[in-house]
Amino acid sequence: MSEPDAGNRVRPTLPRGLIDRDAADIAAANAMMARIRSVYELYGFEAVETPFIEYTEALGKFLPDQDRPNEGVFSFKDDDEQWLSLRYDLTAPLARYVAEHYDRLPKPYRSYRAGWVFRNEKPGPGRYRQFMQFDADTVGSASPAADAEMCMMAADCLEALGVARGDYVVKVNSRKVLDGVMEAIGLGGDENAGRRLTVLRAIDKLDRLGADGVRALLGAGRKDASGDFTRGAGLEASAIERVLAYTGARGADSRATLAALAPVIHGSAAGEAGLRELAEIDALIEAGGGADRVVLDPAVVRGLEYYDGPVFEAELTFETPGEDDRPVRFGSVGGGGRYDGLIARFRAEPVPATGFSIGVSRLLAALRAIKSPIVEAAEAPGPVVVLALDRDEASMANYQRLVARLRAAAIAAELYLGSGGMNAQLKYADKRMSRVAVIQGGNERGAPGGPQVAIRDLRLGAELAKASKDRADYVELRQRAQFSAPETELVARVREVLARA
Amino acid sequence: MSEPDAGNRVRPTLPRGLIDRDAADIAAANAMMARIRSVYELYGFEAVETPFIEYTEALGKFLPDQDRPNEGVFSFKDDDEQWLSLRYDLTAPLARYVAEHYDRLPKPYRSYRAGWVFRNEKPGPGRYRQFMQFDADTVGSASPAADAEMCMMAADCLEALGVARGDYVVKVNSRKVLDGVMEAIGLGGDENAGRRLTVLRAIDKLDRLGADGVRALLGAGRKDASGDFTRGAGLEASAIERVLAYTGARGADSRATLAALAPVIHGSAAGEAGLRELAEIDALIEAGGGADRVVLDPAVVRGLEYYDGPVFEAELTFETPGEDDRPVRFGSVGGGGRYDGLIARFRAEPVPATGFSIGVSRLLAALRAIKSPIVEAAEAPGPVVVLALDRDEASMANYQRLVARLRAAAIAAELYLGSGGMNAQLKYADKRMSRVAVIQGGNERGAPGGPQVAIRDLRLGAELAKASKDRADYVELRQRAQFSAPETELVARVREVLARA
Repeated sequence: MSEPDAGNRVRPTLPRGLIDRDAADIAAANAMMARIRSVYELYGFEAVETPFIEYTEALGKFLPDQDRPNEGVFSFKDDDEQWLSLRYDLTAPLARYVAEHYDRLPKPYRSYRAGWVFRNEKPGPGRYRQFMQFDADTVGSASPAADAEMCMMAADCLEALGVARGDYVVKVNSRKVLDGVMEAIGLGGDENAGRRLTVLRAIDKLDRLGADGVRALLGAGRKDASGDFTRGAGLEASAIERVLAYTGARGADSRATLAALAPVIHGSAAGEAGLRELAEIDALIEAGGGADRVVLDPAVVRGLEYYDGPVFEAELTFETPGEDDRPVRFGSVGGGGRYDGLIARFRAEPVPATGFSIGVSRLLAALRAIKSPIVEAAEAPGPVVVLALDRDEASMANYQRLVARLRAAAIAAELYLGSGGMNAQLKYADKRMSRVAVIQGGNERGAPGGPQVAIRDLRLGAELAKASKDRADYVELRQRAQFSAPETELVARVREVLARA
Repeated sequence: MSEPDAGNRVRPTLPRGLIDRDAADIAAANAMMARIRSVYELYGFEAVETPFIEYTEALGKFLPDQDRPNEGVFSFKDDDEQWLSLRYDLTAPLARYVAEHYDRLPKPYRSYRAGWVFRNEKPGPGRYRQFMQFDADTVGSASPAADAEMCMMAADCLEALGVARGDYVVKVNSRKVLDGVMEAIGLGGDENAGRRLTVLRAIDKLDRLGADGVRALLGAGRKDASGDFTRGAGLEASAIERVLAYTGARGADSRATLAALAPVIHGSAAGEAGLRELAEIDALIEAGGGADRVVLDPAVVRGLEYYDGPVFEAELTFETPGEDDRPVRFGSVGGGGRYDGLIARFRAEPVPATGFSIGVSRLLAALRAIKSPIVEAAEAPGPVVVLALDRDEASMANYQRLVARLRAAAIAAELYLGSGGMNAQLKYADKRMSRVAVIQGGNERGAPGGPQVAIRDLRLGAELAKASKDRADYVELRQRAQFSAPETELVARVREVLARA
């Protein structure tokens, strides 16, 4: 390959909304996901994974805020002219999987999966076009016990990750109850499906826009700070107030909330069925001792279109200092709900299903903010670096032998393979967060009593560099920071330093 | 969401060349990758990951066999009309990453990553459009020691996975030596870059097509079994024989191979530089005791266009019975090489780099064929299933309490959430590969001495179902297959059964 001239040089940059992950990010995410996995497995869920690409038609279009076709998902044509898409969540592909393998799967089918999903959206702070979700789903059970279990499991995940009870809440609501409200304001029936969706998406913005913003979106529409206008649902004033009364119906406890909801949906069959489900979920959660962890909240609707029963949202309620030191709540780190109709897109009969999805990057950011020991402890120190001081073939082969002996003792180690001198090599070891450097020049190799190595504790070395020579323990510190040993004792002495506090 | 009628029903199927992974696949792959990761880390490599999507231009076009533009990669336009692509390997994104973060990275920069890559190609048996690679790369070292290390590390990975010495070989060759051959047959210079690539890709098919097939591709061209014609490189007969003499130059040992290559590239500066590098790699490997694991083989070229120095290929050499019982070699499970020019696409100065990539699915298939204990042991049994015999609220809450007690003791457990009767529930537990079912009906719950549970060993239960009642130990077997215990002893007695051999 010939070298391109400057004019043809490619700019090394990522498309916006995409990021790289370094060793610390990966270790922390893996440690976090291992805990989530063990909770999911404790609950009897088993792993299954689908590929990143599906037929666009199989995924369907259920994303929030996608009014134009093909917005929201990355799509491309296959060579036989069929549209393919990158998955935008893990639920739509699971529905395809279950429908495809329905007869051979155990039913109920309890499965989990972690995976990257893609959204072709305008990225923003903390909002990426590729992000990871970690889902669990129970397919084939219409029982509210399956929904209650999702909520309890989400709560258990958060506690397994070091989020204290009281610092989070799992909120539950029901799309069916919401349908009851819609009927009550005259938005029942297939002909109003579009307007119902607009109302639902307006409510979903309650957290972000507040009651006034949502009021505008339920009415004529709303102009945002940038001047962009979003058309509203066009509801009358009384209907708007009824919707807002509904979303604000959360009481001091579940019993109060259920009591407040009853008159709002009175007379709607869907609404009453939804309310019965909520009451049943609430009873199961109370029996399981989860009343302080899981609460009913009519303001939760979730943006995805395919939910058609109970919906859940896990929120972190503690505050951390944000920009300009104003306290910030982390807010939602996951959610889910029942999607009985999603698998029916593929099959003659409906297949009940419910699931929960954790937003891995958001949760990880939260765990870092509270210094969760699970993610803090995940980072490993760098390898032992054997310096390459003499680069003739025999010396290099000998350095390699030293490295091989460390590796054989399960100590991560490497030979410095760059072209720098001793100082550059020690700096390299520091940059790798290494604890130990092994040094052997001609003097050490040719020592009268047999070959020696110098072993350098890089942390004490850094301390020594800053220490005053008048310090009482200076000599002792210097001796501990770097000492000689027979080559035969290499492994034992390196271990000694690695074991230092 | 309203239910679609049959005419609108979506077919639940995946685009070709894409597959789902079940729990056993995932567990086996994870167990395998954990071993590879620990070898990479033992060698001092640290994790870094890039996203799946990059600017098409940043990835470049280095895939083998892609003559038409955009073939090989999945590409799509961003909303600002820039072309984006799914990564086709992990090396091109790493080059972008290193170029983007060059100043802050330690140099040499040793990193590893596992990740899915995508090829928009015709899929075939064992050939997918999404597959996983597990790469390690050393960037910023021009030393052949970095190449030798890649080969030794690949060998160590295979042994860590249970592939015995002698059942694999890591082959090494050099693109520079190959360039020397090209010069010798009059294909030197920039103006012949295209024809050199055609020659290289012809050689890369040696394994698949044999010498006669390659001879045709080096000459006028070749018609395959389906009648498709591939245009050849148009070399003269003497040049063709020279290329084939080169690819066949592997001798009994490295020394013999090096000696056989010397006359072939005599007079070519590139060829002689390549030969010196191969000799140096060979010496380092011999000093490291790897001469029986890593061999020089001029037939190895690797398909990717960006390699410009040593190239490597890891092959499994043992045979397993294939279709119609003819022995089949697994062949290549990974490869790599030096790509000093790849990062230079982004930067003013060249940045030397070398790497190795393991094909995760191919290697996993091989490990399964040799019944490697690492992947065999990965599969976990299913959860304990607590049957739901009475579905009133109080009974369900009590079942949930039993499940919660098992989970609190770190035993994976679930309450059956379907609508089936007792037989369906026991069948479900079998399908989940569960070892234990816990059964409590009205009699057990209301037992005079306090509530009881029946604990069923599902494996012994299956044995009992097939056993003759005349069997000497039939009664004992029946007692062991299912027994009653006080509810308070639930955890201890379930543990007892789980511990049975």
